[in-house]
Amino acid sequence: MIYFDNSATTKPYKEVLDSFVKVSTDYFGNPSSLHNIGGQAEKLLSQARKQMAELLHVKQGEVFFTSGGTESNNLAIKGTALMYRNRGRHIITTSVEHPSVREAMEQLKDLGFRITYLPVNYEGRISVDDLEKAICHDTILVSMIHVNNEVGTIQPIEEVGSLLKTFPKILFHVDSVQAVGKIPLEIHKSYIDFCSMSGHKFHGLKGTGILYIRDGVMISPLFSGGNQEWKQRSGTENVAGMVAMAKALRLTLEEREDHLEEMLEMKSMIIDELKAMNDIYVHTPIEHSAPHIINFSIRGIKAEVFVHALEERNIYVSTTSACSSKKKDVSHTLLAMKVSEEIAQSSIRISLSYVNTLEEAKYVIKSIKEVVNYLRGVMK
Amino acid sequence: MIYFDNSATTKPYKEVLDSFVKVSTDYFGNPSSLHNIGGQAEKLLSQARKQMAELLHVKQGEVFFTSGGTESNNLAIKGTALMYRNRGRHIITTSVEHPSVREAMEQLKDLGFRITYLPVNYEGRISVDDLEKAICHDTILVSMIHVNNEVGTIQPIEEVGSLLKTFPKILFHVDSVQAVGKIPLEIHKSYIDFCSMSGHKFHGLKGTGILYIRDGVMISPLFSGGNQEWKQRSGTENVAGMVAMAKALRLTLEEREDHLEEMLEMKSMIIDELKAMNDIYVHTPIEHSAPHIINFSIRGIKAEVFVHALEERNIYVSTTSACSSKKKDVSHTLLAMKVSEEIAQSSIRISLSYVNTLEEAKYVIKSIKEVVNYLRGVMK
Repeated sequence: MIYFDNSATTKPYKEVLDSFVKVSTDYFGNPSSLHNIGGQAEKLLSQARKQMAELLHVKQGEVFFTSGGTESNNLAIKGTALMYRNRGRHIITTSVEHPSVREAMEQLKDLGFRITYLPVNYEGRISVDDLEKAICHDTILVSMIHVNNEVGTIQPIEEVGSLLKTFPKILFHVDSVQAVGKIPLEIHKSYIDFCSMSGHKFHGLKGTGILYIRDGVMISPLFSGGNQEWKQRSGTENVAGMVAMAKALRLTLEEREDHLEEMLEMKSMIIDELKAMNDIYVHTPIEHSAPHIINFSIRGIKAEVFVHALEERNIYVSTTSACSSKKKDVSHTLLAMKVSEEIAQSSIRISLSYVNTLEEAKYVIKSIKEVVNYLRGVMK
Repeated sequence: MIYFDNSATTKPYKEVLDSFVKVSTDYFGNPSSLHNIGGQAEKLLSQARKQMAELLHVKQGEVFFTSGGTESNNLAIKGTALMYRNRGRHIITTSVEHPSVREAMEQLKDLGFRITYLPVNYEGRISVDDLEKAICHDTILVSMIHVNNEVGTIQPIEEVGSLLKTFPKILFHVDSVQAVGKIPLEIHKSYIDFCSMSGHKFHGLKGTGILYIRDGVMISPLFSGGNQEWKQRSGTENVAGMVAMAKALRLTLEEREDHLEEMLEMKSMIIDELKAMNDIYVHTPIEHSAPHIINFSIRGIKAEVFVHALEERNIYVSTTSACSSKKKDVSHTLLAMKVSEEIAQSSIRISLSYVNTLEEAKYVIKSIKEVVNYLRGVMK
C-alpha cells in the first residue's frame, strides 16, 4: 500500500499508540480528582502540555487541549465573536479556508456579523494590502489558514501578524492544521493570538487537538462546565490522547530533520513529471507552498474515476479535501484561484508524510502515467 | 487498590483498549475519504453507531458522536438556544445539575436568556408540579440530570417526558452521563429530544461521548465544518474511540446483568453500616437513587483529610464530584437539598462499578470505621 493521502489523516505512529495504551491503563484517573490516581493523571497531562509548549516555542499556559482542528477553529472564531461582539461585528478571513472556518463564519452571519472573504491570486495567496484595506473600525478578528489543505499554498502569516500588531484590538487566528510539523512558525514573533492544530494530521490520534491562545486573551468557551483548561474548554481531559499527541509532534519534528530533503525532492520530481505530461495542470505553486501537498487536474478525466483507478494499484490519493470529497462540491480554493470549473472538477491531491519514500513516489508517477494513458484510451 | 471513585472516571476495559488499538492501526483512514481506506473506517464507524443505537433502543440516525459528556450537554443546550432563540428565551433546569449544564445556562444569560432553576426536596428530587408551574409562553427547553453525579438521586424523567409531550414546542434534554449502564431509560417512550452520555464513565475512553438527538430535531452546531454527523457536529470522527465506546457499553450492560444484585447489596450494606455510626449523615436517598453512588458526611472531619486518610489504605473515594473537587466549592446539590454548609463541606462520595466486589466493600467499611475513630481521636 502506498498511502499518499496524509492531509486527510495519517496512520498513528506505533510509539504513539503504545503511549496511549500505557496511560489509559496505568494512569486512568480523572486529573480533577483529589487523590493520587487523579494526581498522577494530572502530572502526565501537565508534562504533555510542557512538551507541546517547548516544541511550539510557546508558554505552557498558552496550550489548550481540544478534540481536534475543527473544534479549535470553531472555538477561536466563535469564542472571539461571542466574547467581543459588543466591540465589533466585523471579521476578515480568506476565500481559501477549510470548511470549519468558512462554515463557522457563515453561522456568525445569523448573529449579525459581517464577514469579508479576501480574494487570492492565481497561486492562492492573499495580498496584505487587500487585508489592510478590508479592516474596518469594528473588525475584531482576522482568521487565516496557514497552509491551504487542498493546494498547499502558504499564506504570508508573518507579514499579516506584523500588520495586525498595529491594530491591537483585532485578534489574529491562524489555522495551522496542515502546517504543523511541515512549516516552521514562530507563533509569538508572528503576533498570533490563536493557532489551531490537529493530532491526527501528524501521526497522532483522531479526537486530539490544540488551540494555542496567547497569554491574556480571553474567549467565550464553547464548552463550559468543570473549568478545565483554565475555564476556556471544560470537560474531563483526554489525558492519554494528549500525551500521545505530544509524542507524535516530537517524533514528527525529528522525522522532519531527517526526511524534509527527501520530501522536497519527491515533491519537485512529481511536479516536474506531471508538468511534462499533456493536459495536466499543476495547481500547487512552486513558491510559497508546503513540502507535502501537490494538487493537479487531468483534463477530461473525472477525479473520482482517477482516484479509484490508482486505488486498484494500491495507491491512495484524494480528490480535493477529505472533508469535501463526498459532497462533490467543486473546490472553493481552486475556484478562488480562478481555475475553471471544468478543470477544478478533475483535481487530485497527493499529500505526503515523512514516512513516504522516493521509491514510492517513483512508482506513483509511473502508475499515474499508465492510468492516464489507459483512461484516455478507454474514452477514445 | 480499591477504586471506589467510578463516577469521576472508570478504568477502560482491556477489550475496549484492544479494539481502539486494532482500529487505529488497521483502519486508520478518514471516513470522509473516497477510497477504500476511508471506506473501511466509515463502515466501522457506522457499525459502532448501529451497535450503540441497538443498545440504547434508538435509531442509528439519532446517535451523534461527540468528545464527551460536557460537549454533549453544551451542544444540546447552546445548540437549542441558538437555533430557537427567536421562538423564546426561557429555559428550565434544576438546582442540582452538573457544572456543564449549570455553567452553560449561566453563559446563556449573557445572550438574553432567562433561566429557571427548579428547587429539589430533601432527597434531591424536583417536583413535576413545580416544573409545570415554571413553564412560560416562551420556554424552549427543559434540561434535567437523570442521575445526580454527587448523591445519586434519580429524577422523574418519564413523568417529565409525559408532561412535556403536551408542550410540543419545548425540547427536553436529559443528562444521562451518570445513569447510562446503571438505570434503564427508554428514550423514545420518555419523549426525550436530547440525551447526553460519556464513554469514560462506563469503562470506555476519555474523549468519547454521545448526544442522542431525536429524529427530526435540528440544532445550531457548536462545530461547523465538514458536515460530519449529519451537519450537527463536524470534525474528523474519532472512529477508534467510538468503536471502543460501543464495546464498552455492550460489556457494561452485560456486566449489569451479572452484577447489579451485588452492587445493590454493596450499596445497602455500606449505607446501613454508615447509618449505624455516630454523627454520620447519609445524603443518598433510599428510594429514587442509583445503585452505584453513596454520599455521606462525617461531622467534624474535613472531607479532604478523610479522602487522603483512606488513600493511605489504598482506597480511592471522592469529595463531591471530580469536576468540583479542587475548587473547594461547597456542593450545589447538597445545599439545594437544604443540607447545612458545615455538613455539606465534609461530604464524601463513594461510586461503584460492576467490577467492584463485596469483599472490597467490606474492607472499605472496616477502613472507614478505623479512619473515623483514628481522626476523632487525633482531634480530641
